[in-house]
Amino acid sequence: MTKAELFEQIKRKKSYLCVGLDTDIKKIPKHLLDSEDPVFEFNKAIIDATAEFCVSYKPNIAFYEAMGPKGWESLRKTLDYIPKDCFSIADAKRGDIGNTSSLYARAFFDKDSSGLSFDSVTVAPYMGADSVQPFLAFKDKWVILLALTSNIGSQDFQFSELNSGQRLFEKVLEKSQDWGNAQNMMYVVGATQTESLIEIRKIVPDHFLLIPGVGAQGGSLEEVSKYGMNNQCGLLVNSSRAIIYASDGEDFAEKASNEAKKVQQEMEKYLSMI
Amino acid sequence: MTKAELFEQIKRKKSYLCVGLDTDIKKIPKHLLDSEDPVFEFNKAIIDATAEFCVSYKPNIAFYEAMGPKGWESLRKTLDYIPKDCFSIADAKRGDIGNTSSLYARAFFDKDSSGLSFDSVTVAPYMGADSVQPFLAFKDKWVILLALTSNIGSQDFQFSELNSGQRLFEKVLEKSQDWGNAQNMMYVVGATQTESLIEIRKIVPDHFLLIPGVGAQGGSLEEVSKYGMNNQCGLLVNSSRAIIYASDGEDFAEKASNEAKKVQQEMEKYLSMI
Repeated sequence: MTKAELFEQIKRKKSYLCVGLDTDIKKIPKHLLDSEDPVFEFNKAIIDATAEFCVSYKPNIAFYEAMGPKGWESLRKTLDYIPKDCFSIADAKRGDIGNTSSLYARAFFDKDSSGLSFDSVTVAPYMGADSVQPFLAFKDKWVILLALTSNIGSQDFQFSELNSGQRLFEKVLEKSQDWGNAQNMMYVVGATQTESLIEIRKIVPDHFLLIPGVGAQGGSLEEVSKYGMNNQCGLLVNSSRAIIYASDGEDFAEKASNEAKKVQQEMEKYLSMI
Repeated sequence: MTKAELFEQIKRKKSYLCVGLDTDIKKIPKHLLDSEDPVFEFNKAIIDATAEFCVSYKPNIAFYEAMGPKGWESLRKTLDYIPKDCFSIADAKRGDIGNTSSLYARAFFDKDSSGLSFDSVTVAPYMGADSVQPFLAFKDKWVILLALTSNIGSQDFQFSELNSGQRLFEKVLEKSQDWGNAQNMMYVVGATQTESLIEIRKIVPDHFLLIPGVGAQGGSLEEVSKYGMNNQCGLLVNSSRAIIYASDGEDFAEKASNEAKKVQQEMEKYLSMI
């Protein structure tokens, strides 16, 4: 999916919501556990219930990997089920030396090899250029690079002040401009980092930002939208637990739908301002 | 495996070699491709041929992940086949917010959940404390944290000079002392970074270092051993491609054995000096 196509979807659905499919077998409603593939059954119901209100789905790969090969089967089926007009994100936070990153790119982009072909994958920047570039070699695919994450640990290194006057996350934003552009790179910026969004938008005015941390992690959609939105929206705001675990009963899909709709309606308001 | 047990194995086998099982279906000998699980058949033969000369095996997870669910099956069978006296490393370079890292820990340490129980996993530090600590919550398991990697991209961020006077990789070494100790953490330091080993040993004198980059990437075993070894060896030196792809013919295992033996014999010389 191209940047223009993504913006078209955002306008059409009046939403920049990404639903995080962080599906933990230990947390899904008990009545699903008897089915052959409870994780997929859960995801299918969540997708059916939320597709109207979101433009993107983001399975966090850890949740599938934790279940071994059958987890990867559930992931493949889930990806196949995600509607084609939704932007798919493999939240994998991979990154290795060039030779190896090209294998990770195969894992998430090359359906013939792995069974999976996501639109995008999240990548960790610590290992630099050659750890990121192999993903960018795939046509019409995206790298979503970690810049400033939503967790408490973001304080440990990402905010480190460099001799150059920059903080590390600012160097990541700047340096990575050499590797890709607003048509094939996005950045992860945690919703809990709104005070940094103004600075971030000075460095990457045109790029899409993937914003996790609204909902269970406490970030504010209003603040994020106020400081992060650009004239082509430029935001995908993720919510995982607050939507998919809105209820742990038989009404989980209905409750997820209600939550997603609520977020979409708030987003519609902010979108009308651009 | 504890630190003391690992050192015992090193003394017994007179080796600190780790064999990297970076098994690419596109590179293994043609005659194996007819078998039901060519990747496992290859690994099995490599393990049989090299177990005498090494103390550790390190499958790089990207190579298995690239093949989808059947790749994870090959990985599970490979791990089950690694002799129990060898230290097993899931070279996965994972890391996510705490809630999610605990799922990655399940993936690599909890056999009941994923089918896998490695001794250790490599972790990327960019997301800080809570991305690393969930792995350390597992008893008798190890985190091997990326500090200074062997690739060209290590120049982009790892060497960044901070206001504090440290470089980023030095801050990673120092900060992570708050999270674990020499009994449950090791560090990745590329073999191409020998000029930094002296500085690194000042910060982490007692920790084991996992050193990739000898062989295909051009690092020197002699230099690494000279500057990196401590009085309990403190090194696991990895070689992947130079050993496992020593031949692409029917003699691949024999040639791999010869290469591993050559490295072991050189290591025996350096070990005799401590």
